[in-house]
Amino acid sequence: MVRFDVLSQGEELVSGSTTDTNATWICAELRERGFTAGWITVVGDELDGIRDALAQAARRAPLVICTGGLGPTSDDLTTEAAASAFQLGTVERPDALAQIEARYRARNRAMPPANRKQAVLPIGATLLENHWGTAPGYWIDVGEPTSRLYFLPGVPSEMKKMFSHHVVPDLLARYSLPPRRTIVFRCVGLAESEAAQRMAGMDGPGVIVGYRAHLPEIHVKLHLDPGVEAEPLIAETQRRLAEYVFTIDGGPLAAVVGEKLASRGETVATAESCTAGRIAADLTTVPGASAWFIGGAVVYSNAEKVRQCGVDAAVIEEHGAVSEPVARSLAEGIRTRTGATWGLGVTGIAGPGGGTAEKPVGTVHMAVAGPNGTTHRRLHLPFDRARNLQMTTALALDMLRRQL
Amino acid sequence: MVRFDVLSQGEELVSGSTTDTNATWICAELRERGFTAGWITVVGDELDGIRDALAQAARRAPLVICTGGLGPTSDDLTTEAAASAFQLGTVERPDALAQIEARYRARNRAMPPANRKQAVLPIGATLLENHWGTAPGYWIDVGEPTSRLYFLPGVPSEMKKMFSHHVVPDLLARYSLPPRRTIVFRCVGLAESEAAQRMAGMDGPGVIVGYRAHLPEIHVKLHLDPGVEAEPLIAETQRRLAEYVFTIDGGPLAAVVGEKLASRGETVATAESCTAGRIAADLTTVPGASAWFIGGAVVYSNAEKVRQCGVDAAVIEEHGAVSEPVARSLAEGIRTRTGATWGLGVTGIAGPGGGTAEKPVGTVHMAVAGPNGTTHRRLHLPFDRARNLQMTTALALDMLRRQL
Repeated sequence: MVRFDVLSQGEELVSGSTTDTNATWICAELRERGFTAGWITVVGDELDGIRDALAQAARRAPLVICTGGLGPTSDDLTTEAAASAFQLGTVERPDALAQIEARYRARNRAMPPANRKQAVLPIGATLLENHWGTAPGYWIDVGEPTSRLYFLPGVPSEMKKMFSHHVVPDLLARYSLPPRRTIVFRCVGLAESEAAQRMAGMDGPGVIVGYRAHLPEIHVKLHLDPGVEAEPLIAETQRRLAEYVFTIDGGPLAAVVGEKLASRGETVATAESCTAGRIAADLTTVPGASAWFIGGAVVYSNAEKVRQCGVDAAVIEEHGAVSEPVARSLAEGIRTRTGATWGLGVTGIAGPGGGTAEKPVGTVHMAVAGPNGTTHRRLHLPFDRARNLQMTTALALDMLRRQL
Repeated sequence: MVRFDVLSQGEELVSGSTTDTNATWICAELRERGFTAGWITVVGDELDGIRDALAQAARRAPLVICTGGLGPTSDDLTTEAAASAFQLGTVERPDALAQIEARYRARNRAMPPANRKQAVLPIGATLLENHWGTAPGYWIDVGEPTSRLYFLPGVPSEMKKMFSHHVVPDLLARYSLPPRRTIVFRCVGLAESEAAQRMAGMDGPGVIVGYRAHLPEIHVKLHLDPGVEAEPLIAETQRRLAEYVFTIDGGPLAAVVGEKLASRGETVATAESCTAGRIAADLTTVPGASAWFIGGAVVYSNAEKVRQCGVDAAVIEEHGAVSEPVARSLAEGIRTRTGATWGLGVTGIAGPGGGTAEKPVGTVHMAVAGPNGTTHRRLHLPFDRARNLQMTTALALDMLRRQL
């Protein structure tokens, strides 16, 4: 198990104007190849700060990926900081300079004097050519035990190409790592704490259980070392998480619903009051949704419930717009009018206003109308408006999924 | 200048499955209030790692914001790590326990035993109530010179509310920072680089211009030191950003549209093909939207365009579903059928499939039908499916806003 650290350098990352997506990408790439994630450190344009962060990362991990701070301007300080952290000194490298000049020549331009700085590397660095931008990358080995630090540009597109082109082959040659397997159980309708309770005791030698809230979904992950037999663990996890699992290693809920509909040659239409288009919008995040999604009605007002789905105004009067009969009527009405195989109807009180003692905020009625009749479900959600609507959307799709 | 560090905790952040957006948000919030960004450290679910990262951050900065690791599962280790880092010991806090139990009681559920763990805090911690989730937050003062560490949940929506509700007032009371004024110009339809070009030269003594991409919006901020006269700067910024500004210091685009409709006593209805409910969903993020939003149609299939909005099938045949006459017909049809003051119609090719040489991916036709007739706009968007739909939604709402 080789451990790695990531060091992201750039004032824009600590000033709050840019999110560090480089580190996430690097972590995913290395984890998939069997490396173990250590820390991510993000530092701004401070020479001392970068120096300290580099020294600490090299002490923590035998492999450090550094991005950013290799540009031509005065606030690009990474090379100077690296030379200082590891007492290496710097030198202008003819090979690096030739590469930068060639890049400008190819664009029929002269290299601006400022870019000469990018050819200055720590003494002893191994150059990594950048075919996608001006900043050369490099690696250095430092300390005892040795830590190898790779320095790559901060521009994400350049960094990714440099990583794939130079770093990955280098690591594969250097380490022979067994690939760890990760199996992802995507669940909906289950709280993270409940998932953890159900999975209690599943950890063991070579088996790590991880949880990730990806609201409204919860992902339960099995990380298995090589040699661990996966099938019994997958079956046991499936048994414990039961019907809350909507896919193993598959896509989001809307995509799973779409795949099921497509494979059955069926279609769905939606009639949404409180969710007001969120279910339709979620279904159409899936490319090619037109094969199984017909359309629907956003029936925010009572008049639209009557007009678009044929809900009986007297039923609304008697039971209220947020009620079982109205949800059923919405699902059945939209199914009949669109000719879809399945009709989904949702009505509820998302909040913050609109609640009563009898029907508090978070009360939702949903119904699925299909070839074998209509089913209904009532929810009591405890969240704020946005999360109530997000959860309602997911649980409505899940209600349909369970019937497919 | 008070320096702060951010510590983000979560295995998902170092494993590459989730990008740490919390740290970016916190950095922006604190920088705007005059604090100086130090490091961001991201650590996984390792007790020793979290402990070391906490100890180091507290040595580096007098203010540390920590997020994550406060949940009920075995991999939630932040409190244990904090107690260990600062030799504090832990205690189950009745006030914290009462808060968690009350949250479950409000949902007519018993607190799962696992959640009891969330009531265990470091000895001496000051509880920060969480009205938006189960994990209580807290702060502790440690070391000499003192560093104050705030511990907040990792779920971004909860973290942001906890930060705004508890941390900000606390910091304002603790530090007497010059009351810098910030004016936010929210824009849509303008790229960040174009906004920066338009604002060139507006920086000056006591005047900092900031940009935040908050897709599909761009926020341009004027940060003014005390004594700087605001009005001429506001007027000049408004002049430069012109009609792209939809509000100064106001809410999101949907809320601005809703306020304008409400003040005019008018209503809107939507007919959406490619956006498939996203415009309706966006409008109904605004509490109380039922006062001015009637509902609408999701007309994904051509048959639904005909059925729900009375689009002429021959027009679809002749011009295609993605065309100016169909967009106009959708807007006019939904306006007439719902009786709304305004009808919004959108049809387009979001991608990745469906494009042709004549109508490439990103082609969108949108129309607004109102008391004085119908206007039309054609877009050519260069993004992927999700961003094309997001941008279409915003530009459709903005098209309506400009007529109000």
